[in-house]
Order: sequence, then C-alpha cells, then structure tokens
Amino acid sequence: MVGERRPVVDLTDDEARLKLPLKWGVPEDVLPAWVAEMDYAVDPVVIEALQRMVTDGIVGYPLFGWDPELAESYAGWAERHFGWAPAPEAVHPVVDVTAGVRIAIDVFSGPGGVVFPTPGYNAHHGLASVTGREELRLEVPASAERAEIDLDRLDRLFAEGAQTLLLTQPHNPWGRVFTRAELEGIRDVVVRHGARVVCDEIHAPLVLPGAEHVSYLSLDGTRDHAIAIVAASKAFNTAGLRCAQLVVPDPVSQQRLLDEPMSRNESYSTAGIVAAKAAYDLGDPWLASLVERLDQQRSLLGELLATHLPEVRMRPLEATYLAWLDASAYGHDDAAAVALERGRVMVSAGTSYAAGRGDHVRLNIATSPDRLTEVVERLAKAWT
Amino acid sequence: MVGERRPVVDLTDDEARLKLPLKWGVPEDVLPAWVAEMDYAVDPVVIEALQRMVTDGIVGYPLFGWDPELAESYAGWAERHFGWAPAPEAVHPVVDVTAGVRIAIDVFSGPGGVVFPTPGYNAHHGLASVTGREELRLEVPASAERAEIDLDRLDRLFAEGAQTLLLTQPHNPWGRVFTRAELEGIRDVVVRHGARVVCDEIHAPLVLPGAEHVSYLSLDGTRDHAIAIVAASKAFNTAGLRCAQLVVPDPVSQQRLLDEPMSRNESYSTAGIVAAKAAYDLGDPWLASLVERLDQQRSLLGELLATHLPEVRMRPLEATYLAWLDASAYGHDDAAAVALERGRVMVSAGTSYAAGRGDHVRLNIATSPDRLTEVVERLAKAWT
Repeated sequence: MVGERRPVVDLTDDEARLKLPLKWGVPEDVLPAWVAEMDYAVDPVVIEALQRMVTDGIVGYPLFGWDPELAESYAGWAERHFGWAPAPEAVHPVVDVTAGVRIAIDVFSGPGGVVFPTPGYNAHHGLASVTGREELRLEVPASAERAEIDLDRLDRLFAEGAQTLLLTQPHNPWGRVFTRAELEGIRDVVVRHGARVVCDEIHAPLVLPGAEHVSYLSLDGTRDHAIAIVAASKAFNTAGLRCAQLVVPDPVSQQRLLDEPMSRNESYSTAGIVAAKAAYDLGDPWLASLVERLDQQRSLLGELLATHLPEVRMRPLEATYLAWLDASAYGHDDAAAVALERGRVMVSAGTSYAAGRGDHVRLNIATSPDRLTEVVERLAKAWT
Repeated sequence: MVGERRPVVDLTDDEARLKLPLKWGVPEDVLPAWVAEMDYAVDPVVIEALQRMVTDGIVGYPLFGWDPELAESYAGWAERHFGWAPAPEAVHPVVDVTAGVRIAIDVFSGPGGVVFPTPGYNAHHGLASVTGREELRLEVPASAERAEIDLDRLDRLFAEGAQTLLLTQPHNPWGRVFTRAELEGIRDVVVRHGARVVCDEIHAPLVLPGAEHVSYLSLDGTRDHAIAIVAASKAFNTAGLRCAQLVVPDPVSQQRLLDEPMSRNESYSTAGIVAAKAAYDLGDPWLASLVERLDQQRSLLGELLATHLPEVRMRPLEATYLAWLDASAYGHDDAAAVALERGRVMVSAGTSYAAGRGDHVRLNIATSPDRLTEVVERLAKAWT
C-alpha cells in the first residue's frame, strides 16, 4: 500500500448543498466557510462500507461497551501514523468527541473546576457546567506570538482547586500541534497536583507537514491520570454518523467505565462504527491526499492573506483546516457579521471561541482553491 | 394508502446473525430472545432512504437543534395514529430515548429524587444517579393482579421530596398500556405536588389490538410539567442509527432547550434522522403488518405457555413484543441462567428490571412462530 493514493475530489456547489446540509444550509449567494466540514467527497472506501451495511440491513444495536474490531482498527491506525498505539482493550466507542469528554470528566474527575484553554472549540464552551463543574478559562492573549498553555497559570489554577485540564491537541482553533516538550511540561504540572487530563485528539489525523502528533497518552507517567478521545470522523468528513473512541489506558479505569450505568455511554451508532473501521483500515491512501491538499490550501491562504488582507494576523497553521484569524486591524467589533453582511461569506464568529473576540474569526479552508480565493477576496471586500 | 400493506419478512438464522450482531451474537446453539430487537427485515422504505443517503454521501452534520422535516414527519404520524399531535416546534431530535430522558431531567427537573416504577427498563436503572439525583423505586409487587402505578405511594414519594416521575408508557417490561383514566390519576398527583413527568413513549407504535395509546402530553394540564420522548427506532428495528425525539410542548421550554450548551444535545445522527423520517412518512403499511404479526405472536405465546409452562404467570400483554414472565412456580433463583444453561435459550434476566426478581424473565416474542415455539419448548425443558 506504500505510495498508493486515492484523490481528493472537490464537490460542486450543488453537490455540497446536497451532502452538507448544515454547512451549506446558507442563502444561495453566501459562501460557507464556517462549521468544520470539508467540501470534498467522502473517501469511496467509507461509502462502500456504508453501502454494504445498508444493503445487508445492519442497522440494529452495535455491540455493547467494547467492539474488538473497532479497537483493533484504531490501534493499527495509530501505530502506523504515530508509531504509538494503545492496547485494543483501551479503545472504547462513544457517540462523539464532546460526549466522550463529558463522560471522561463525569466518571473520572473530582468535583473541582475544569481548566479550559481559550480560544476554545465552541462545543466545549459550557461543557464543564454540564458536568456540574466550574469552567476555568486559561486564555491565550491575542497578542501572544505563539499559542501556548501558560504553565504558571495552569499551576495556579490547580493550586486553587481545579482538578481537570481539558486539552485539545492538535488545538482548534489555535491550529497548534503541541511539541513533546510542551506536553511533558503540562504533564509535570498535572502530576504535581494529582489532577487529570482529558485530551481531545480528534484533529490528530490532520497534522500538516512540518509538525508531528504526539499522543498525550504516549508520554511516560500519563496513563493513570489521562483519557484521550479520538475519532476518524473529522478527517474523513463523517461527523453525522456518530462514533468516536475513548482511549482509556488504565485497566482499572476500563473496567470502571464498563461498570457505569448503561445510560452513561450507549449512544454510539452502528453506522459510525462501520465508517470508523473502514477509515482506519482502508483510508490511508485517501488521507495522504487530503493532508497534501490541506497543506496546499494552507499555503494558498498565506498568499491570499498577504495580497488581500495584509493586516490580518495568523499564527502558523500546524494542523486542522481551521485558521484562527485576528482581523482586529480592520476595526470591526463583529468581523464575522460584517463578512456575512458585506461579503456574503460565512465564517465562524470569534466570540464562539473566546469571549470578547468578535474581532477574530475562524476560517475553514477545506474547500477548492477557487472557493478559498473567493472567500478571502470577499473577506477583503467586507472588512477593508 | 388505506389498506395498503407491506409484509413482515422473517429473517433466517444466517440473516439474523448478520443483521443483528448484538442480539444474535450468541453461541450457535443458543436461541436469542433477549434484547429488544426483532427477527424481521427492516421495512424496505427505510432501507431505500438509507441507500439514497449513502449513495448521495450525506454523512455530515445534521441540522442543529431542530429539524423542520423531522418535526413535521413525527407530527403527521402522531396525528394519524393517535388522533393527537404536538406542534412541530415541540419536536426536537435527540440521539436516543435514554439520552432524551437524561436531558429532560437534567435541564428541567429540580434536584429532588426521580420516581422510577419497577420492574423497569434496564437502561433506565441508574439513570437518576447519572443525573445526580436519587432513584426512588416504586415497585409493583409480583403478586399484583394488574401492573399499575400506586398513586398513594406516588403521592407519598412526592410529599417526601421527589420531583420527577419517569413514566414508561406503554410500559416495558410490564407490557401495559395505561388508560386515559390512569394517566389522569397520575397527572393529578403530579400537579398537586408541582412535580414533573418525563414520559418514555418509545413503544407507542407497538400498542396491540385491544388497547389504545394516549400520549401523556395530550391530557389537559400536562404541557407545562411534562416532556415525552418518542422514536421510530423500536417499531422499525433501527436502534443502532440513533435518533429519537424530545417532545417539548411548552414554548418557553423549547427555547430553554435550544439555549443549553451545545454539548447537552448534539449527538443525534444523520442516518437516524433519515430512517425516522422514512418510517414516519412511509412506514404505515409495514407497521400495520407488524402489529398484526405481534398480535399473532402474543396469542401463540399464550397457547404455548398453557401447554408447556402452565405455571408461568403472565399479565395480559397490551403492547410491545416483550413479555414479563413470572416463573417463580418452577423454583429457580436465576431463571434466565437456567434457561441458557439447560435450554440454550437467551432471555433477559429479571434482575435487570427489578432487584431480587431472578425468578422472572423478559421474553422477546418478535420472531417467527417456529422460533417462538422452540423458545418456549426449550424454556419448559430447562425449567421443569
């Protein structure tokens, strides 16, 4: 399979409107560059697996609690891509990443606050409160040269009673891939306080050339305090099918999870499992093309910004297809609203990721070069 | 469409093993009659809708928070089947019934205990504790002639601080369809205490001839204290696809639900919505055949028990395909284990529904007449 490739196929507008009803459910003259879905056709191997499932009529309950094939598929994938894999017993299905974070906190964390680095993934805002815990934001200043976890502040928050760090890595919307040294620094602070880490690694397959994903769980001294949540759904554009995976390295915790009331974790779907297995087992030749394309889009974005929006500030995009743009130089309090109204382009409002950051937007670049060009041109027209 | 029918098609053993991996994931010599899935092929209109979805590649995020088509489909279906329907604005997607119950309690109930009539649905055991509330069991004695909610005990539990009733109706595993008068009696007690009702109505499509489903929400004076959870997935055998519906009649509560953090309710799946819409819009001709078949299976069960297990006590089965059998006359502490070991038939252990009821089992009759005959013969061999 070395070197084998399947191409990334761009969707036409009509196809995208059919296939991506949320992202493309915008007025006809609006270009959507908001929610994290890609304007590319799903890898045929995933579609074929789903077709077999439907034709065979396999739409009943999935296996309960642990699916050995799914676990093996993820472990094999992780080994190939990161050179490190959990034991299959560690890999448990869960309906989606956000639900997985919630379960990991509800079942394993103490009642103290949850440290949430911001700007942070919109669906994770308020998640601490849903678990009955305080949300303690650890904010990266807009002015920071590099988006980093401030270890002194993290230390202080734990000293003041926080008990969990919700770590998104690669980070959305920072676009950062934390280095091994950074992760070790975080680990040391966590261990010093006997705290826990819940690590959302859904973007790990989308690390771009130049960076390398290190699973937090692969670090020494993390297995008894950390749980990761991983998924194929972001990289393979199947968010609606609903299956992520909790990676629970500690055997005692694995059993504790299985012993929870059924209602804690029974909502993952048969279709989500089928799609995840196909993606992990057979998706490498497509994923390689995708990463190449996203790398090209990243370069194109840099050129387009330099040409049309030179005052936009963007830190290097190391992973994901989501760029965090500081448009404050253009002076709009709600840059996303201005983009929609004047430019007819829909980006995600900065306020969805950090309070008071209406002068930032999150831009989805997973589309065709032509559309990305038009998006940036429209943003320039709107903002300048 | 009046009188139009599509037949119920029985699965062969091989087909069932392929299509129902949880239920049929038993050793080859074991007949499975446990988890609530049916040994029938899924209605072709549902399969066709899923095939179109997959072929079109519609596997991304569903609409967020409210899906107008799904809401209209359910409202139309309820109107046709029950002569009462909620406003479409009341119908919100949720990943499954158990998650819906949890959301309804988490968002709308006070912190007081949750009254849980038992024997009760296994996945709902422990659900109160998952919401951080006390589970207060209101037990129907095995000796009761009819399975009913004891209103005096309910009144007492509310007086002592309970704030929510988790009502499953039609009831699983009682097989009861509560009458309008019974429901009004429950309502009056609830209203007197300012309590809330969360009503799991997933089995409403499976009310058998002789009984009539009355949605709790259709009663006067319930809309400001009650939420129902409904679904097509049980009647149409698509439990793995993951979409149920919260019916929230009160407009203020509808908005409150939409204002919750995203992580509260975002896990329903695209495939589940597609299957639900097809079932509600196009499934009536199949559902009519199904109810007819289940009615026949119910009669057959009565005959088989009279012949082979005359000491088994069973209250009339008014709905569902799940019979609650009192096998205590045969003297086994764990009747399900004896059934499996000596009879090679897998039924659900009574202890999954009520503490100390190992001498009861729940029997799934949604299979072929031949298999049901063999199941009861095997139970007789095992128990007598």
